[in-house]
Amino acid sequence: MHRINGRTIAREIEEKLKGQIHNETPCLATLKIGDDASSKIYRKVIEQACKRLGIKPIQIDLPINIEEKAAIKKIRELNDDETIHGILIHHPIPSHLNQQNIIQTINPLKDVDGLHPLNLGSLLLGNEFLTPCTPAAVIKILGYENIFLQGKEVVIINHSPIIGKPLAIMLLNRNATVTICHVHTQNLKKHTTKADILITGTGVAGLITKEYIKKGSTIIDIGISQLPDGTICGDINFSSILSKAKAATPVPGGVGPVTVASLMENCIKTYKRLKKKGKKEGKE
Amino acid sequence: MHRINGRTIAREIEEKLKGQIHNETPCLATLKIGDDASSKIYRKVIEQACKRLGIKPIQIDLPINIEEKAAIKKIRELNDDETIHGILIHHPIPSHLNQQNIIQTINPLKDVDGLHPLNLGSLLLGNEFLTPCTPAAVIKILGYENIFLQGKEVVIINHSPIIGKPLAIMLLNRNATVTICHVHTQNLKKHTTKADILITGTGVAGLITKEYIKKGSTIIDIGISQLPDGTICGDINFSSILSKAKAATPVPGGVGPVTVASLMENCIKTYKRLKKKGKKEGKE
Repeated sequence: MHRINGRTIAREIEEKLKGQIHNETPCLATLKIGDDASSKIYRKVIEQACKRLGIKPIQIDLPINIEEKAAIKKIRELNDDETIHGILIHHPIPSHLNQQNIIQTINPLKDVDGLHPLNLGSLLLGNEFLTPCTPAAVIKILGYENIFLQGKEVVIINHSPIIGKPLAIMLLNRNATVTICHVHTQNLKKHTTKADILITGTGVAGLITKEYIKKGSTIIDIGISQLPDGTICGDINFSSILSKAKAATPVPGGVGPVTVASLMENCIKTYKRLKKKGKKEGKE
Repeated sequence: MHRINGRTIAREIEEKLKGQIHNETPCLATLKIGDDASSKIYRKVIEQACKRLGIKPIQIDLPINIEEKAAIKKIRELNDDETIHGILIHHPIPSHLNQQNIIQTINPLKDVDGLHPLNLGSLLLGNEFLTPCTPAAVIKILGYENIFLQGKEVVIINHSPIIGKPLAIMLLNRNATVTICHVHTQNLKKHTTKADILITGTGVAGLITKEYIKKGSTIIDIGISQLPDGTICGDINFSSILSKAKAATPVPGGVGPVTVASLMENCIKTYKRLKKKGKKEGKE
């Protein structure tokens, strides 16, 4: 079985991105509400990627008990600030805040996470300018693996609005046959054993054994779990699938680094579009 | 087999809608670009439904060779006209016009077809205020048939941005396990014979025979074809599935009338929200 190296793919993407910003400094604002541990780690990884690419990171922290009005006011300030080109809001957003109100406040032109309804709706209509970073990473990895998606049987285990739903749309945009499973699916194995490509994002450590997969299939792992001893692992039981799968992504070092590279790509895209727009308006 | 009567369901929905508009007259503008025959029929059906409900229809016709700028100007006039509460643009939109530019020009608050990216994106995020009318009709029919969707195996044959993709999202919002097939699917039967609910929108007359379905399943037919003798029919070969399916929708008289009822419902929704917004702004 071929172990897909997400770090190598991410570095290749970053190298291409570096070529796109000479003597320019896009600025990415990350907004964290509260004190979630995984958000802290993600932010650190983002900061390191920004440094490698010459993107300026700005970190904003809001208290966990902030009122919705105050959070929205802060986001509007970031929208209005012309020196900021991308805005990312860390998940989870505290549950007392209306998640959609918060996300919808971001200027869609600065929506590096691709989660503003205008960007998600454009995706559904086939326009993939700013796409959510994890689904974008999955598509990129399949591209690097030279997997032609048209007509392929793809099964996704995840139906969240951040991962499973937009990923299904992106795969349909490429004419794959797509099945979306989740916690309410009656007979999961029946579906997963038919998949040429299985994309799993359950957060159940080691769920995907050889009994769940088709011989010669490619398995992409979006699951992240922390074992009692502190080890980070994904949904795949690697030793079990070794002799049956054709290729699989590890956790860590699989989808994660490519997700960060996709975020960097989105930030450079928003930067370039805002600059172009600014020039056009300056001329008028 | 139970033959689902879409006309009866549509009348029931209309009766409920009538109760929502006493002495009020919402206004629905339908914009047709060019001279498509099926658009003419659809417009006539819409006009009749408007009459039954007390909605005022306004019909605007633009020449098939209109420039994009001129079409967009016309849509903006409809957006600005406070006496108009809903705007529908007939499909197909001529191919020299950028479909997304046209749809995206509609004020999302007047988007009775639910196809503005902002409304499609909200749908993906789980907010189903204005949903595309055909997918909404399918969900309504399944509701009238008392079919509980959570955990059900649903197969859709159609992956268009107007039908298959938003319908898949609506089914996922209800926790069904969803497979989306289309012209590039390798082994269609393998999927359709597993479906508790099969939703077919291929436009291939009589494609769905008993060999394609699971015993006891419900088949919803979105396909419309015109036979050489002028007869209108759907994807289902009715005589073939009679002894195997539990229930199915005919064409005509199945999804079609409920689609029109869904359009009327959306128009009353946009009307009420615009009125509420107007009152609020008047007060301020």
